[in-house]
Amino acid sequence: MDKIPQNVRRYLPILDWGSKYDHDTFVSDLVAAVIVTIMLIPQSLAYALLAGLPAEMGLYASILPLIAYAIFGTSRALAVGPVAVVSLMTAAAIGDLNLTEPAQIALAAGTLAFISGVFLLVMGVFKLGFLANFLSHPVIAGFITASGILIATSQLKHILGIEAGGHSLIHIVESLLAHLGDTNVITLVIGVAATAFLFWVRKGLKPLLLAQGLKPRMADILAKAGPVAAVAVTALVSWVFALDTRGVAIVGEVPMGLPPLTAPSLSLDLWGQLFGAAVLISIIGFVESVSVAQTLAAKKRQRIDPDQELIGLGASNVGAALTGGYPVTGGFARSVVNFDAGAETPAAGAFTAVGILLAAMFLTPLLYFLPKATLAATIIVAVLSLVDFSILKKTWNYSRADFAAVAATILLTLIFGVEVGVSVGVGISIFLHLYKTSRPHVAEVGLVPGTEHFRNIKRHRVLTHPQMVTFRVDESLYFANARFLEDYVYERVTEDCGIKHVVLMCAAVNEIDTSALESLEEINARLKGMGIKLHLSEVKGPVMDRLRKSHLIDHLTGQVFLSQYAAMRALGDVSGEAGSLDAHPHDAEPHDADPQDADPHNKAAE
Amino acid sequence: MDKIPQNVRRYLPILDWGSKYDHDTFVSDLVAAVIVTIMLIPQSLAYALLAGLPAEMGLYASILPLIAYAIFGTSRALAVGPVAVVSLMTAAAIGDLNLTEPAQIALAAGTLAFISGVFLLVMGVFKLGFLANFLSHPVIAGFITASGILIATSQLKHILGIEAGGHSLIHIVESLLAHLGDTNVITLVIGVAATAFLFWVRKGLKPLLLAQGLKPRMADILAKAGPVAAVAVTALVSWVFALDTRGVAIVGEVPMGLPPLTAPSLSLDLWGQLFGAAVLISIIGFVESVSVAQTLAAKKRQRIDPDQELIGLGASNVGAALTGGYPVTGGFARSVVNFDAGAETPAAGAFTAVGILLAAMFLTPLLYFLPKATLAATIIVAVLSLVDFSILKKTWNYSRADFAAVAATILLTLIFGVEVGVSVGVGISIFLHLYKTSRPHVAEVGLVPGTEHFRNIKRHRVLTHPQMVTFRVDESLYFANARFLEDYVYERVTEDCGIKHVVLMCAAVNEIDTSALESLEEINARLKGMGIKLHLSEVKGPVMDRLRKSHLIDHLTGQVFLSQYAAMRALGDVSGEAGSLDAHPHDAEPHDADPQDADPHNKAAE
Repeated sequence: MDKIPQNVRRYLPILDWGSKYDHDTFVSDLVAAVIVTIMLIPQSLAYALLAGLPAEMGLYASILPLIAYAIFGTSRALAVGPVAVVSLMTAAAIGDLNLTEPAQIALAAGTLAFISGVFLLVMGVFKLGFLANFLSHPVIAGFITASGILIATSQLKHILGIEAGGHSLIHIVESLLAHLGDTNVITLVIGVAATAFLFWVRKGLKPLLLAQGLKPRMADILAKAGPVAAVAVTALVSWVFALDTRGVAIVGEVPMGLPPLTAPSLSLDLWGQLFGAAVLISIIGFVESVSVAQTLAAKKRQRIDPDQELIGLGASNVGAALTGGYPVTGGFARSVVNFDAGAETPAAGAFTAVGILLAAMFLTPLLYFLPKATLAATIIVAVLSLVDFSILKKTWNYSRADFAAVAATILLTLIFGVEVGVSVGVGISIFLHLYKTSRPHVAEVGLVPGTEHFRNIKRHRVLTHPQMVTFRVDESLYFANARFLEDYVYERVTEDCGIKHVVLMCAAVNEIDTSALESLEEINARLKGMGIKLHLSEVKGPVMDRLRKSHLIDHLTGQVFLSQYAAMRALGDVSGEAGSLDAHPHDAEPHDADPQDADPHNKAAE
Repeated sequence: MDKIPQNVRRYLPILDWGSKYDHDTFVSDLVAAVIVTIMLIPQSLAYALLAGLPAEMGLYASILPLIAYAIFGTSRALAVGPVAVVSLMTAAAIGDLNLTEPAQIALAAGTLAFISGVFLLVMGVFKLGFLANFLSHPVIAGFITASGILIATSQLKHILGIEAGGHSLIHIVESLLAHLGDTNVITLVIGVAATAFLFWVRKGLKPLLLAQGLKPRMADILAKAGPVAAVAVTALVSWVFALDTRGVAIVGEVPMGLPPLTAPSLSLDLWGQLFGAAVLISIIGFVESVSVAQTLAAKKRQRIDPDQELIGLGASNVGAALTGGYPVTGGFARSVVNFDAGAETPAAGAFTAVGILLAAMFLTPLLYFLPKATLAATIIVAVLSLVDFSILKKTWNYSRADFAAVAATILLTLIFGVEVGVSVGVGISIFLHLYKTSRPHVAEVGLVPGTEHFRNIKRHRVLTHPQMVTFRVDESLYFANARFLEDYVYERVTEDCGIKHVVLMCAAVNEIDTSALESLEEINARLKGMGIKLHLSEVKGPVMDRLRKSHLIDHLTGQVFLSQYAAMRALGDVSGEAGSLDAHPHDAEPHDADPQDADPHNKAAE
């Protein structure tokens, strides 16, 4: 194995874990695969329905993609396949195309998976996994919550047995209300019963089984089989009573056999229409997948490689596109089940694929009479666990800027749909971050008596010197705040004509970009015109390395001091003892400070 | 005056300086106004030509806008009116509309000024001046340089006496080459002679006059009158030799009289088409104007208020829209001249307006025979002084990220025109900033023997403790780098099983947003699973105030230490003397450090 070059090994994690594969690992993986397969059969059918696609596409999306991930993925426990949010986004993307022909819809879904797969592969090859970081946690949380509501609402039509559509909450509800009169009572009974049963399985069954003396592991597996039981029972009832003749929508004929080989469309028009959606699906899917993969890996002190995860998920999606599937990613609940069931390597995913393949080849006739309402119930129960408004409270308490981002994401997702919601959420996050750093906290500092420490004159009783003013800038200096600093310095020096020295204390300045460098040169030149010297203190190593490449240091009217204390000793004419300063002790009370220090820009305590 | 409420005074700076206006100030302002008027007459005609508008619109844009700025503006020396870059952007915006009817073109230009004015007013009322900060200095410099090249090239058609068009360098050059055969030799002679004369006036006249014994002030004024002389002489030559009959393009009839009252179009369609361009024109114009206003104000220890500047420029543009003008802003060269000529208050601008008004009322017949080539020559000479590629060298030496932004801005402006260029430039600046902060410098630090200071183990010979690892994060923690920190910490601890304590040294962390908070909670929980405690040290006051509102501090497995030294004493079991540590001194040589510390993500010395 050691002869395989490193760059090949990087792209094929299977070479690492595959070489150590043994019998024990095989048994663990197989057990996990059986449990995940039981869970995945109804889920894959249901999510295909959610995506507005024929049920079998859900099965097809759960075969080759899982094998591809097993070869290229780095997570030991990630279970790849159709997931709720990506299915919803697929429905929205394809809905935008206004297609009516089923074959066209299937082709568009496959093409979406293909574009998404290629995009992920390209990101992986160029190691662009960091781009996913621009989705802030609150935006993701808000997006998932809003998506859960959208998904659950969109499934009500199946529970009611009516036709309805729409990709935003208002449209869905409008459409539901418009068709409410068509409600099929038998469908409604099945739907409500299945939903109630599944909620009970989720919340009440496991404690009951444990109370009956079952082992926790067995109780867990039985509870996971709830959806399969619901599928079996309702399909049976539907067949026995021929419910399809009474207006109950059933899954109908699901083709039996191997997944078909399919080719994505190469129409530039279609690619153009789907590209934006494919990018969003890729990034959202990647973030969801990496989050769960990292959480599970950490529990065993394992590592995943985000850039290789892009390759793994990209290969999965290309696999989905080539075998009649639609966009896939790593699912949260399913991966946790896989992990808890003992999956040791990605081989568990490959075994799951074999299970789904067998289901596609032999079990599909049994699904003929399955009411769509049952699948809708499994979706509703699954996604309502995603809905969590606590992020609103959390961000409200912690950071109003983040609250604004999450509230906007939730509202816009509900009102305008997933694509607008998440795009605007990202935009708001970035804007608010830039806004905050564009008005950095700047403190005027003085010497704490008897120490070498300098503190904010508004918060502490400190010593200052009448001819010297020191600003501590608590932010890297870059284009968005360069002008702010200029304004801040000019405002302070124009109001106090006694100032002869301005010191910028740079302990918290991690970067000075060209804009800020020019601002500093400008400040230096303007202060020179006023007869004031500009000094710097406590400049960090990497920042200083860079400043040496510029002309600022040559032109600086003042000096660069290693420490602020050294600056005060040199400029404030202190001979060792701070007490000899012509000092102005400020009180700790803010109102004792000069009024202009209470500048609204200065968001010290925000 | 004191009875006027503060909020009215804020919006009417004229109340401040107007109340102290006296005879001396009047004389100073009047002298400055005369000089600026002489400079502005040919400039305003030329820039209207550049904008693709009739010459008189340049004059009209130099009357009411100047009076509006005098009332609402805060700069004492800013000279408002048509400027080169905004004229070019106007030409591009109106060119996009594919209008042919002169009246429609004039209406579109007025409407553009109106939208731009309203946009600036709204920004001013909501104090959104900080938005201009998102234009980084290198992007502005690159944009101005590229615009200068575009403008100079676009004027060559007038020098050659041919018809040509285009808003990008390639199109302009293509169009010029295609029509090169139509070159009018007489026009070319006039154009080249005027250009040469104006370059000589700019570079050689003043020293010559000084050598002749003229006073510097007088030499300056004569040099500024160069363009007027060129205009007068070429118009005279053109009239005497009836050059218009020989194919020389002349300005032709310029209506004589007061500016017309005009109303902007209220067509939603037109607003939609112009809005993007109006926003860019507003922001670019505002940035140019504020930069020069701040520079001049600083020279006299005066202040300008950027948000009130938005009001002043907004009022100017609305004024332009209502009196037959087109978008205006504060011009660089003209304001410097105004300042040098002794302007003391914005009244100088109002007097200039009177001068231009007189010109519009009485001098326009004299402009009939003025060759367009002369105006093109004044533009070329003016804008070539804006072209400055030194920003490329400067950013190349100082910051490759800024170099990329400026190079992209220059290239895209030249290739695709001003709107694409500046938009992409802003996008790249923001992206690169986020990219840099998304991979912050994280240093593993140790104790410098005999001190309480902690330094990078890769740069210094320091003491560390085998069960304890300390990371100093040199960046605020926010969504873009939250995951990076997680990865960094996990990578370090999974490879070294002896670690029992992880300390995050937060001296340079100016903010922790909700995403980063969740990452810290996640790190805390995962490390707990590995039996490792997470500690924080040197957390800043405002950051700690916020953390106390979260659950992190309650759940933290370790402690929050006031200083890193306190953390090491407590965790490293040091009894006062660092020497008693079970220490691993690292060499200052980076190759002595563990190889994984040389992580490519860790851009310490970039």
